[in-house]
Amino acid sequence: MNADVIAAGITGRSLASIDDFSNVELSCVLSGAADVGAGMERYGDVCRGKIMASLFFEPSTRTRLSFETAMLRLGGQVVSAVDIGATSLAKGETLADMARVVGGYADIIVMRHPWEGAARVVSEHAGVPVINAGDGGHEHPTQTLCDLYTLKKDQGHLEGIRIALWGDLKYGRTVHSLTWALARFGATVVFRPGAGLAAPQYVLSKLATDYGGEVVSGEHLRRDEVEGVLPVDAIYVTPHSPHQLAMLPHMSAQMELDRGVDALYVTRVQKERLRAEGDDGQPLKYPIVNRRLLKTPGFERSVVLHPLPRVDELAREIDSDPRSLYFAQAHQGVPVRMALIALILGRMPAGISCSESPSDDWVPTAHMEYMHDTGVQCPNERCVANQPTERRYLRQRFKLIDSTPPRLRCMYCDHEVEVMAVATSEAYDEPTSRRKYHSPTSRWANAIRRDNLLVFSSIQDAESRGFKPGAKEKVSG
Amino acid sequence: MNADVIAAGITGRSLASIDDFSNVELSCVLSGAADVGAGMERYGDVCRGKIMASLFFEPSTRTRLSFETAMLRLGGQVVSAVDIGATSLAKGETLADMARVVGGYADIIVMRHPWEGAARVVSEHAGVPVINAGDGGHEHPTQTLCDLYTLKKDQGHLEGIRIALWGDLKYGRTVHSLTWALARFGATVVFRPGAGLAAPQYVLSKLATDYGGEVVSGEHLRRDEVEGVLPVDAIYVTPHSPHQLAMLPHMSAQMELDRGVDALYVTRVQKERLRAEGDDGQPLKYPIVNRRLLKTPGFERSVVLHPLPRVDELAREIDSDPRSLYFAQAHQGVPVRMALIALILGRMPAGISCSESPSDDWVPTAHMEYMHDTGVQCPNERCVANQPTERRYLRQRFKLIDSTPPRLRCMYCDHEVEVMAVATSEAYDEPTSRRKYHSPTSRWANAIRRDNLLVFSSIQDAESRGFKPGAKEKVSG
Amino acid sequence: MNADVIAAGITGRSLASIDDFSNVELSCVLSGAADVGAGMERYGDVCRGKIMASLFFEPSTRTRLSFETAMLRLGGQVVSAVDIGATSLAKGETLADMARVVGGYADIIVMRHPWEGAARVVSEHAGVPVINAGDGGHEHPTQTLCDLYTLKKDQGHLEGIRIALWGDLKYGRTVHSLTWALARFGATVVFRPGAGLAAPQYVLSKLATDYGGEVVSGEHLRRDEVEGVLPVDAIYVTPHSPHQLAMLPHMSAQMELDRGVDALYVTRVQKERLRAEGDDGQPLKYPIVNRRLLKTPGFERSVVLHPLPRVDELAREIDSDPRSLYFAQAHQGVPVRMALIALILGRMPAGISCSESPSDDWVPTAHMEYMHDTGVQCPNERCVANQPTERRYLRQRFKLIDSTPPRLRCMYCDHEVEVMAVATSEAYDEPTSRRKYHSPTSRWANAIRRDNLLVFSSIQDAESRGFKPGAKEKVSG
Repeated sequence: MNADVIAAGITGRSLASIDDFSNVELSCVLSGAADVGAGMERYGDVCRGKIMASLFFEPSTRTRLSFETAMLRLGGQVVSAVDIGATSLAKGETLADMARVVGGYADIIVMRHPWEGAARVVSEHAGVPVINAGDGGHEHPTQTLCDLYTLKKDQGHLEGIRIALWGDLKYGRTVHSLTWALARFGATVVFRPGAGLAAPQYVLSKLATDYGGEVVSGEHLRRDEVEGVLPVDAIYVTPHSPHQLAMLPHMSAQMELDRGVDALYVTRVQKERLRAEGDDGQPLKYPIVNRRLLKTPGFERSVVLHPLPRVDELAREIDSDPRSLYFAQAHQGVPVRMALIALILGRMPAGISCSESPSDDWVPTAHMEYMHDTGVQCPNERCVANQPTERRYLRQRFKLIDSTPPRLRCMYCDHEVEVMAVATSEAYDEPTSRRKYHSPTSRWANAIRRDNLLVFSSIQDAESRGFKPGAKEKVSG
Repeated sequence: MNADVIAAGITGRSLASIDDFSNVELSCVLSGAADVGAGMERYGDVCRGKIMASLFFEPSTRTRLSFETAMLRLGGQVVSAVDIGATSLAKGETLADMARVVGGYADIIVMRHPWEGAARVVSEHAGVPVINAGDGGHEHPTQTLCDLYTLKKDQGHLEGIRIALWGDLKYGRTVHSLTWALARFGATVVFRPGAGLAAPQYVLSKLATDYGGEVVSGEHLRRDEVEGVLPVDAIYVTPHSPHQLAMLPHMSAQMELDRGVDALYVTRVQKERLRAEGDDGQPLKYPIVNRRLLKTPGFERSVVLHPLPRVDELAREIDSDPRSLYFAQAHQGVPVRMALIALILGRMPAGISCSESPSDDWVPTAHMEYMHDTGVQCPNERCVANQPTERRYLRQRFKLIDSTPPRLRCMYCDHEVEVMAVATSEAYDEPTSRRKYHSPTSRWANAIRRDNLLVFSSIQDAESRGFKPGAKEKVSG
Repeated sequence: MNADVIAAGITGRSLASIDDFSNVELSCVLSGAADVGAGMERYGDVCRGKIMASLFFEPSTRTRLSFETAMLRLGGQVVSAVDIGATSLAKGETLADMARVVGGYADIIVMRHPWEGAARVVSEHAGVPVINAGDGGHEHPTQTLCDLYTLKKDQGHLEGIRIALWGDLKYGRTVHSLTWALARFGATVVFRPGAGLAAPQYVLSKLATDYGGEVVSGEHLRRDEVEGVLPVDAIYVTPHSPHQLAMLPHMSAQMELDRGVDALYVTRVQKERLRAEGDDGQPLKYPIVNRRLLKTPGFERSVVLHPLPRVDELAREIDSDPRSLYFAQAHQGVPVRMALIALILGRMPAGISCSESPSDDWVPTAHMEYMHDTGVQCPNERCVANQPTERRYLRQRFKLIDSTPPRLRCMYCDHEVEVMAVATSEAYDEPTSRRKYHSPTSRWANAIRRDNLLVFSSIQDAESRGFKPGAKEKVSG
């Protein structure tokens, strides 16, 4: 597709989640960043006359400075609020009202907020594009763009690379979006978490549901021989990979693993955690990435990325190793954000060539919106839709994931609702006595048309709506 | 008058109070704002090379972002301090010293400060123009300008409009300045406070003393028939209104009221207050402005303004009503402040036409400064002249309000001093035994030449200066 | 030397300490500032396209606004962080990592930090120039530049002026750097501290060691006749002064003193201190500088400087005295910082004439770096090299001051290590039984080649390395 057409399609759009952009659009941002990086001064007047509002409802100096630098290097201007916690923007006012007011001042809003899904809500009310600079533990899409850019710049492509995610895969916000983005571009992802720090189940299940690859549990793989190196917990084998054809997922995974990894993506571990003890009273293992590791078979060619700041999980001795990309990765936040802002503001100079790759036109599985009111609530306390100020105007919204059992995924924060019972909405046309609910894994469940599928997150919800247990199957509640 | 001459007269001036500008000057700012609003990009280089210092001694993100956006959209630059609470600018240093230092850096200062009258003091020492962005509960003149601009833009004129002030008229800083400004431009103001939230007496008394209209108590008016709608507490009938000729103020007020209101100005109510109980143990009434109200006779044509943020006093259901102007009102803060800054910096392009209206050349009553030292202190604890650091160099200053009884009005914070006794300064030439003080409401008081009038805020002050009670009248102390 | 050559030599350099620039380079900054001051608008585009990161790890609104104003007046842009205390830039991350990241965003870094020597460390890792805006109690070199500029602008030259340092000479960071800078330019410095507030010994000893002048104790001078005026504690007579030839330091000092002072440099005294009592239970004297003092013999021609903010040590009554330069001094922070930034960024327009003075080519005594590891630690708790995060990668570094006894001076914070014993490194080639240590004031100590000199800050350190007391002399430990 013509690059200028793709760029035009990005103009005026928000980036609340990395999923808001298609592969070809993300590739266009990365190509733009490469062009910016090749001569930043050529972009010095591109956003002249434009103003970015930089709203940080929780502090993140590094991310904020990177965004503000990007806007200033484009010739734009910045109004910045880091003092929001104490002001009326925070006290009792809804995000929607705040968005409408600030959207009347600025041409683009960059926002960091502790509530998950907050950037989505702001993007729906501001009237100007919104870039999510981190919403709680949910997403940080521009960090993911920087990560992808650094990998692509170094490896030449994303498709087919093998990357090990290392360390805290449970709490690291950045690593979740990155996992999905890597899957979209056809990378093979090896999970090597520290003890007790495995990736949450919903991350893995989204990999399988939305990106079509195989997730193979580490139990099926040969034990890692390297002493002190984190064990492989799981491996995601992309459908782009030819090994997939083997139809033997763990053999295919083992083959991928045996080839070593092209990149190590190390995450910061909380200090408390480094000192924590496991069930056996021994300190939990969290091996650091050091010179010795980088000489170990499987890591001999691996470049090292890290979202920074590091604590002790990256030894300083490797800072001078040419494979250590983490400082370059931080610096590339500026050209990546410059390209993104310029594209969104419709100021990207014409003629940037978007390099195309086979994965660019790939799209993840789409899910329909769940349109029934069956009392389902997002289970995530930090979800924007569960905040007292926002509940006054926001309704709960979900996508229906058509798996067995079916699941609902919150449209704000991506958390999933466990479904305890299902029914068909056609039952509402029946006498109350004939309304039945079923186990979500039952054959009854599978037989209901997805449009008509009612799901309940508790038996009580089903029964309060007049449904009785289906005759043939028992449902646990 | 020629608009360029008016504009030239604004150059280099400070706006500590809305009273610092004449009607014709305020109209010039509003005309300028209209021109800015008609094509903001034409102003993109107007303040190139100028720097605004944005000094917020208490947080107000919304106001700060609006000012900073305005300056940046003019092509100027901003240095911003929101961290002042913790620094030497706050610790022990006088406002005068701070003003002198920052006035040497910037071309214009915008300041928010908790002390009432602080912007006035800074304007007297900075050597550059100062705009008050809120000084405690005293004034917020640019908010008033935005309010006037929104009303004038919507109604076409200010003179003769009827506007209901709604809700918290006691603590709302913005509503006090607005009341006076509306009076200056010949609007009729209907006060509809929540229970216990009536406008302070000094607001009403200034209306009568300085702006010459009639303030009619709501008790004399027909009870409002609308259930749940706040009762009318008082109505200010402007001398611009033809009804004034009736010489029957409450009949005139009733006539104004019966015609309904052109605008509703709703103020935020403190959350605590919404939950508070009255003397009868019932929750205090604070009816919200909603669809139903806007269909009620008298409000059918009313547009709705609000300084934002709202809590629950404006129902979200009216957000899409074309009469809801509050978000537009917030956005218009940018062009209004752009026009103000450009005028003050002498950078307003020539040829802006200032639309003239009959009220433009009207001036409020002037008051002489009280030049005697009779130990009078401003009674307002938050007044800048009562702060320990500032008392080292600031003297108490008052205007003499020539009413019966006479009053002193603080030149910094506009609070009034209750006068307990008066005397004549000629008494100082007499033997001590013949120095007499009098009741401020006595005929003696009225007989003293205003130049010679000594006023005392306590009998003790009079007696400590050697005055004895006047023979004929008793004075309570 | 050609001014453009000097300017080119400054390009890309950091200013962590005033000692980083030679006299001729400092003079070049002052000349640049004079040119900026003569027409600031000519510099409005000089730094177009450049970005300054303004990193304040502790608040200092005044200094920050001055720097940011300077950069903006040069046409550059600023990203600013005053919220750092709460963020990852502060939490556990090393200064080196922070420097590497921010150095990838900005073209120049201005930093205020509570740790002494922090700016030095950042300058070593950022990859872009760093200006120290205050590092704990150590240095604040741009304040010193402003002080020098104000003095030179007023007096025409720095060489030969007599300046009294007044008040708190113990805790005032600014006064220490200023003292040394004045010495470098050949000024005579009279110390007049408040009770208990004398300049630290290391300040005086550096004067003697590095700048070659005579420091004469106040005890040898005639008692000051002026009642209530601080007694002279010490006087530094510069070797530039002809009196030096007398070879009778205290007579020379008395002669300097009798001529009165050209300038008074007053420092802020802590409020607590103003109320403190001496050993005799009487309040400590801290006489204020007022009209009366400025009429006293010796001060009749003195101009008055102060780094601001003042508390009560400068009477407001002298604000209007033409000799009161303190507000002008604050304002001159902008042109001085503009010149400095423009020079460092290599954007100073060609052809600025650097006025030359005899002291411009003078250089302080150079000291060799101490290259042995003898367990010596900087004794300063606030030194950057003693912070847990920084010790992970920073090693202790010292200069060897070749005096009797020899001393080590920390290369980060300039604090000095008291040497308890010395030895020769040649002893390492001898059998352990023959390793001897000596008193640092002994003739043995003087006989050791400086390259080979081992110094110990405790006898334990010497003995733990196998050294025994030397035969002939006793060492106290």
